[in-house]
Amino acid sequence: MNYYEESLKLHEKNKGKIEVVSKIKIGTRDDLSLAYTPGVSEPCKKIHENEDDVYKYTSKGNMVAVITDGSAVLGLGDIGPKAALPVMEGKSILFKEFGNVDAFPICLNTKDPDEIVQIVKMISPGLGGINLEDISSPRCFEIEERLKKELDIPVFHDDQHGTAIVVLGGLINALRVVNKNIEDVKIVINGAGAAGIAISKLLTIAGAKDIILCDRTGAIYEDREGLNGIKKILSRETNPRNIKGQLKDAMIGSDVFIGVSSGGIVNSEMIKSMNNDSIILAMANPIPEIMPDEAKNAGAKVVGTGRSDFANQINNVLVFPGLFRGALDVRAKEINDEMKLAAAYAIAGYIDDKDLNEEHIIPDVLDKRVAQVVAEAVKDAARKTGMARI
Amino acid sequence: MNYYEESLKLHEKNKGKIEVVSKIKIGTRDDLSLAYTPGVSEPCKKIHENEDDVYKYTSKGNMVAVITDGSAVLGLGDIGPKAALPVMEGKSILFKEFGNVDAFPICLNTKDPDEIVQIVKMISPGLGGINLEDISSPRCFEIEERLKKELDIPVFHDDQHGTAIVVLGGLINALRVVNKNIEDVKIVINGAGAAGIAISKLLTIAGAKDIILCDRTGAIYEDREGLNGIKKILSRETNPRNIKGQLKDAMIGSDVFIGVSSGGIVNSEMIKSMNNDSIILAMANPIPEIMPDEAKNAGAKVVGTGRSDFANQINNVLVFPGLFRGALDVRAKEINDEMKLAAAYAIAGYIDDKDLNEEHIIPDVLDKRVAQVVAEAVKDAARKTGMARI
Repeated sequence: MNYYEESLKLHEKNKGKIEVVSKIKIGTRDDLSLAYTPGVSEPCKKIHENEDDVYKYTSKGNMVAVITDGSAVLGLGDIGPKAALPVMEGKSILFKEFGNVDAFPICLNTKDPDEIVQIVKMISPGLGGINLEDISSPRCFEIEERLKKELDIPVFHDDQHGTAIVVLGGLINALRVVNKNIEDVKIVINGAGAAGIAISKLLTIAGAKDIILCDRTGAIYEDREGLNGIKKILSRETNPRNIKGQLKDAMIGSDVFIGVSSGGIVNSEMIKSMNNDSIILAMANPIPEIMPDEAKNAGAKVVGTGRSDFANQINNVLVFPGLFRGALDVRAKEINDEMKLAAAYAIAGYIDDKDLNEEHIIPDVLDKRVAQVVAEAVKDAARKTGMARI
Repeated sequence: MNYYEESLKLHEKNKGKIEVVSKIKIGTRDDLSLAYTPGVSEPCKKIHENEDDVYKYTSKGNMVAVITDGSAVLGLGDIGPKAALPVMEGKSILFKEFGNVDAFPICLNTKDPDEIVQIVKMISPGLGGINLEDISSPRCFEIEERLKKELDIPVFHDDQHGTAIVVLGGLINALRVVNKNIEDVKIVINGAGAAGIAISKLLTIAGAKDIILCDRTGAIYEDREGLNGIKKILSRETNPRNIKGQLKDAMIGSDVFIGVSSGGIVNSEMIKSMNNDSIILAMANPIPEIMPDEAKNAGAKVVGTGRSDFANQINNVLVFPGLFRGALDVRAKEINDEMKLAAAYAIAGYIDDKDLNEEHIIPDVLDKRVAQVVAEAVKDAARKTGMARI
């Protein structure tokens, strides 16, 4: 199938992918009197008396806004809010299909962080959660941090944390396959944007001790010239052996390569320079950093990509529907690190030992039970860490 | 039925009234590849190349935001954005049920006009239209005017224009019943908020020559002390006989009373002081300005209210679904006066001469064909006035 042509046809035929429908029927005068005037004034009054009743009488508790400024859409870059809408609608329907979360795309005609923060705050009264999407780095960090502080509903930048969680889930199982511990392995992450940075942070929280983060210049190390902001901070928190040089230099003697960069930039030689039983999660889309066959032939033991036509598809659709399902179900104040870890372990734990092998480290993206398992784990973690309101 | 109790139960059972669902199914890997990655990148690219393609490949063209700040909700007043949500959800489902328009409630945590205008502008890229709702007067005028100027999609404050249109529709037919002309009758409008002012303006455009607008102080006339803003302007454009005094004084010798004020403030004596074959549209909710029986007994010929349990229910659900359906179908630049008039005449014309009588001046609010008729009339008017883009 030519996905690109067929996708155009599908989008045109249906004029987009989402619709807003009623949960209740409006057929009679009584229906109208209950759903609208005069009956509707009663839930309004109740909420006015007790603000928390908004969760009881409205859709707020199940409603997530998928918010973008269109500045970092897929591999397409800064294509603007209108061109980003098909992705946001896609995200919204995945929320519903996999997590029974209602999600609505909001595409913002501004890239100013102050303005984005202000707008999201102002539109939040009717929302149960905020999923930030495809906002370019480094603005995405500031926007998410500020919103987390200022809002009392979960705020989650999926490009960062959704990716980090599913990568950690896959890595946990890949390490089970090769019988190595996360504390002991040398990890190289290529790509120091939103995803790469979040992966680095979450893997560290999960126990990883030796991560080298690479950007276009090469390995990020302390005192590298021209570093600033988050990279400056990470230069101190990662790369304990202070490795310098290009990606290929960083990969020598490593156990794990994680790519959130661009297609084809890893070759056989680089794989061969890694330790035995190496793990390659090459997630550039649509062309991975190295094709699975080539990586395998060069000695990699476990290979995952972002693609559905190879084994081990590492895709955050395994994360965000269940994660928000869990967070919304307990009316979580925020999505904290423990909840993220719980989601990653739930994804990994979904694969039994008997089913686990190098071609099967991660659940099928179409398996809708995964979201339930993730949701339960997230709820537990929220309760244990005092994040659950109910 | 106790609408208030039952409404609470209905809202609680369903946790609100709206959900966001997919128009396409996601069951297979191919479905996922077309609706989401990698296929979705193609409509994104097309829209990036040609912005207008957003109407072709996304839900924008059928998506209306129902926007409020919760400052003038029903008769409840300034109850805030959260407490307003049940009304906005109700509105949204009526849009869908009657007009097949997708509508999403956005409740704003600010009452500052500058901020509201800015937010609505910034969230508009994914929206096909803006329905402003329950925003208090006089801020609502400024907000709507500025948004109309600055946005290229229809902006419509339903409390003003929806009400004005349905009132005009009812009045046209009431005048048919009593065989009077709109140019000749003396009209009193009680209530000089958003609705009353909009009714006054639209009736004037429709040919009315003698309108007295009353507020809590009484008739608005030129040089009345303390008038400012819109009331100052209207004091010159209405009340040509320069009538002064209370509502009861204004009503003497009038043909039409239109109430968008509060319950029970009109009595039999006031009705008796009107001309023969008087028309009373008493739309205060839930208690009309005068009950239909009392008005009839005092000599009124045609009585309409906002209530579903009396004849002649004047409710803007007859307007907004069809009006937006029409505006969206031709991708209207804005909703102009001609489109509003066309909607009113379509509503009136929906009742055949043979069916028209004093108990039947307006279509049944549950008659879903009305929206289609309104939509067609609005499309025609949009085309004739150069407002239609397609």
